[in-house]
Amino acid sequence: MGRGQFVVTLFVLAMSLGSGARAQAGKTEQAPLKGKAAQIRAVYDGWAKAFEARDIDGIMSFYVPGDALVAYDLVSPLQYKGSAAYRKDYQDFLAQYEGPLHVEFRDVQVFSSGNVGFIHALEKISGKMKNGQQTDMWVRATSGVIKLNGKWLIVHDHISVPVDFESGKAVLDLKP
Amino acid sequence: MGRGQFVVTLFVLAMSLGSGARAQAGKTEQAPLKGKAAQIRAVYDGWAKAFEARDIDGIMSFYVPGDALVAYDLVSPLQYKGSAAYRKDYQDFLAQYEGPLHVEFRDVQVFSSGNVGFIHALEKISGKMKNGQQTDMWVRATSGVIKLNGKWLIVHDHISVPVDFESGKAVLDLKP
Repeated sequence: MGRGQFVVTLFVLAMSLGSGARAQAGKTEQAPLKGKAAQIRAVYDGWAKAFEARDIDGIMSFYVPGDALVAYDLVSPLQYKGSAAYRKDYQDFLAQYEGPLHVEFRDVQVFSSGNVGFIHALEKISGKMKNGQQTDMWVRATSGVIKLNGKWLIVHDHISVPVDFESGKAVLDLKP
Repeated sequence: MGRGQFVVTLFVLAMSLGSGARAQAGKTEQAPLKGKAAQIRAVYDGWAKAFEARDIDGIMSFYVPGDALVAYDLVSPLQYKGSAAYRKDYQDFLAQYEGPLHVEFRDVQVFSSGNVGFIHALEKISGKMKNGQQTDMWVRATSGVIKLNGKWLIVHDHISVPVDFESGKAVLDLKP
């Protein structure tokens, strides 16, 4: 939705909460934080570029290295602890596809203050699987980010699709 | 995991990133922020108490009112926009159960700076469904929070279970 989304988000927030809250929201959306929101959004854009190129080192460069990273991914287990485990998870995912992938974001929202922020978006992942099947899947992505040594890095990822409890099936054909 | 988790988290982070990053992490974990992490953790604890009691007003009191709330829930659609839509989603969920629910958190981690933070945890939801079935389900929960009028409120929720792509099924029997 572009880098203006942050302002839109907080404007809506301010409108919905009245003048008292608006002062607080205003504090969160001061001019310098527009820059931060753009920097955090750039993490998703940079990640997408690396992901589309199936560049595992590029992908992992957007994550906090070491044990601090905790990821809730599309697939089991419940959580991946540490960047090494998540890297392996990415490699397993990418190995199912051949050729480049394509990523599209929609409804991106960013919140940040100081050295901490979070970003969430709907994300369409398209690609050709090794069995020949073309997949287009909309997932939900949320990431917690922290600024370390001047660089915003993802310290927590949450990627999922909704579930239909009646059938027990994941719902993979939703569109926003 | 208790309110000491925040310190543990950032200690691990500092250890994993070396002295340069440690200084940054140190900045994030200054004494006043321990209090913030506890306040944010209290949002999950308060939510759980209301959820266990099936108190819809209590549940929603932990969310930003109005249109700013965006939730990615266990079930379709991809996203719930606004607190009214999410309230309805909660009511539909609660209507499937009879009697009280029970919530257990594990591996809670909190990050915050200024008026923005995020919290994530594994969450066990137990209860008796109206068809008589007892359910115990571990889900992954991530929430983005902002401080408005002195109160931490959830502005973004992401709740999910992993998916087994071979069977297309949601994986509901995982344990941490």
